[in-house]
Amino acid sequence: MSKFEPSDRTRLRRAHERGHYDKDTVYKILDSSLLAHIGYQIDGRPFVTPTFFWRNDDILYWHGSAASRMIRAQAQGIEVCLTVSHLDGLVLARSAFNHSANYRSVMAFGVTRLVTDIEEKKRELDRAVERMVPGRLSSLRPNHQQEIKATSLIAMEIKEAAAKIRSGPPEDDEDDYKSPLWAGIVEINQVIGKVIPDPLLAPGITEPDHLAIFKEGKDYSEFLEETK
Amino acid sequence: MSKFEPSDRTRLRRAHERGHYDKDTVYKILDSSLLAHIGYQIDGRPFVTPTFFWRNDDILYWHGSAASRMIRAQAQGIEVCLTVSHLDGLVLARSAFNHSANYRSVMAFGVTRLVTDIEEKKRELDRAVERMVPGRLSSLRPNHQQEIKATSLIAMEIKEAAAKIRSGPPEDDEDDYKSPLWAGIVEINQVIGKVIPDPLLAPGITEPDHLAIFKEGKDYSEFLEETK
Repeated sequence: MSKFEPSDRTRLRRAHERGHYDKDTVYKILDSSLLAHIGYQIDGRPFVTPTFFWRNDDILYWHGSAASRMIRAQAQGIEVCLTVSHLDGLVLARSAFNHSANYRSVMAFGVTRLVTDIEEKKRELDRAVERMVPGRLSSLRPNHQQEIKATSLIAMEIKEAAAKIRSGPPEDDEDDYKSPLWAGIVEINQVIGKVIPDPLLAPGITEPDHLAIFKEGKDYSEFLEETK
Repeated sequence: MSKFEPSDRTRLRRAHERGHYDKDTVYKILDSSLLAHIGYQIDGRPFVTPTFFWRNDDILYWHGSAASRMIRAQAQGIEVCLTVSHLDGLVLARSAFNHSANYRSVMAFGVTRLVTDIEEKKRELDRAVERMVPGRLSSLRPNHQQEIKATSLIAMEIKEAAAKIRSGPPEDDEDDYKSPLWAGIVEINQVIGKVIPDPLLAPGITEPDHLAIFKEGKDYSEFLEETK
């Protein structure tokens, strides 16, 4: 399957042209972010927790302390909505009503699973490090048993998903194009900043080669897609 | 009250030093973002929708098409969790386990209210434009009646809220500080990019003064806080 079947939850009601269900588009947006906002319920009330996540094919993973409220709830196997979004720009139209934003977002739905298989857990915890800093894993000591135990890994197979994208210039009402007002876009970008050594770094320790790809000013969304 | 009373929903269970309940800190983080992730339920299932929002004292506002699924659900007055987060950096520790992220986030809880008072609605729709592009409102034509009607405005008074912040260098295990491995931070920033005129702009229309504050490369989170 190269496509998520649009469902009651994912089919766009309005602005249909902004909706995308093909896996290429959905995955590209997911892979352009380290950060997801995960929605779930505890005692019937909604929570949204910003969380570092990563993907392995149709499965999304995130981890946390076994003691955390979110993890304890999700370890039971509950419905979640994982949302990723990128703000790409402000859309300044010729009327207040047509002001908008350029963005890329994905809503992915599924049921959580606590990963108890130790091979899957070790593999994905390793992949998490490589996702964040490609090339770093091999320089790190292996995880202690206690560290693996203290970490809970949650998996969610994507059951339904849709992407929503807006890009390009404003779309104004016919009449408003006669307006003498400036219209256009203000771009907003997420970029890599400075690399700052730990003040506690022992003398003589230099920046490893695997940091060379973090170039100041590089678009971080592109970086993540390229290094996925 | 200068503080949100910690509740069952908002009290941090772990990493207590990262939790903040004073309104100054909560508001500063909310005011540093245009984008919130709003969690709510439809038919008992969780949804998280990325949404442009703004604040007036203890009340958070967002708007949408009266026909949208999210707005129809929230117009009924339902519990929501509105979350704002900023990714500030990657924290590269001396062990996989202590890798982390620097971030600022707020989870705010409350019950939605469809704004039916026309004065409140007009005032806040105007404030929305000024929030996005300070100084622009006065150059725009007034909203048509039909536009106001087609837009639904949702308000949520903050009942409970907590901020969570991580900043600074990695915190490694005692033993790991002897490691010869580099440790530190890779900063991630959201910045203002280019201002791009609409290709359909009539000849002779120049950039208005109110765009001068959108300086390329400026930290967008700081920009939003300064112009709130």
